[in-house]
Amino acid sequence: MTLEFTQRATGGDSPFALPGSPVPYFLEAGEGERAHLFDQLFTVLLSGDETEGQFGVFTMEAPRGEAIPVHSHADVHEIFYVLDGKVRVIIEDLDGTRHDKVLATGDFGYVPAGRKHSFRVESHRARTLGVNTGGFERFFAAAGERTEARMPPVVPLIPSREQLGAAAQEFRNEFHHGVHLHD
Amino acid sequence: MTLEFTQRATGGDSPFALPGSPVPYFLEAGEGERAHLFDQLFTVLLSGDETEGQFGVFTMEAPRGEAIPVHSHADVHEIFYVLDGKVRVIIEDLDGTRHDKVLATGDFGYVPAGRKHSFRVESHRARTLGVNTGGFERFFAAAGERTEARMPPVVPLIPSREQLGAAAQEFRNEFHHGVHLHD
Repeated sequence: MTLEFTQRATGGDSPFALPGSPVPYFLEAGEGERAHLFDQLFTVLLSGDETEGQFGVFTMEAPRGEAIPVHSHADVHEIFYVLDGKVRVIIEDLDGTRHDKVLATGDFGYVPAGRKHSFRVESHRARTLGVNTGGFERFFAAAGERTEARMPPVVPLIPSREQLGAAAQEFRNEFHHGVHLHD
Repeated sequence: MTLEFTQRATGGDSPFALPGSPVPYFLEAGEGERAHLFDQLFTVLLSGDETEGQFGVFTMEAPRGEAIPVHSHADVHEIFYVLDGKVRVIIEDLDGTRHDKVLATGDFGYVPAGRKHSFRVESHRARTLGVNTGGFERFFAAAGERTEARMPPVVPLIPSREQLGAAAQEFRNEFHHGVHLHD
């Protein structure tokens, strides 16, 4: 069910490559629903459709770059697990306390629902694994663009204000313009 | 909240090192709730207590060895993501179809709730990251033993039939004695 599954699914009418229901499957490294957004390659390995809405899993790869805009999602818990490289994760707690740490390979960060957060790749390149409350994993494709590419974009994919706004609304992802958690 | 948090928590009365509620935190590689079971080191990074029961996250490290006994958990979805090495994952679907694949670094396997499954490390050593329906991540410590060690046990920790049975009952994990998914 590995390669043939993915090839069949992506060749069909469905915009999604994943099974869409709780069935066993395998993916080889790089397989999944890939999307470009900003300077990042996202690959969704598992969605809320396979887990009765419980959780989704994705990987992210990006080069050293600018920080992702400060954002929050009221109903979505999210983790950062660093697979390779260094990523600064900044989280603002509900009382305004700021948690700021450069995570290296194997390090972990937890962003509970509703916390403003941001991150920035602080090494040549970095890869992270994310887990989120089921459903949110498809925000990246909605805000960016599905791709068959296996690398992050060379020219950053900057969505229009309209597209980013629509995706943010659909996935209840709030951008906090003017909030700078970074130095 | 990184090192001082873990040190404080593990030094207190709580048997758990994690916060126990949805608050932001970071862990450096190796930090978390560590336990030995069979020839494996499990490290829980996140539990259902932090995610309103949605999901838990753990890592597993083990040397090449025997297969884990065939088991299933009726209410728990689970993923295998290989961080390093090779792990054979075998899943029996509800209709008896057998999915069997050696997963290498970056590969992914999904075991939906209720499927009999097993795995075996097929390289010198291997490390995986697991995500499961919230709560199940503490099965490993219940079946095995909490540890401060940072390596898998040299001598496998084989729990008594009573301890394994009690943990299986508490976490609704069913062992299928006499079922061999392996060659």
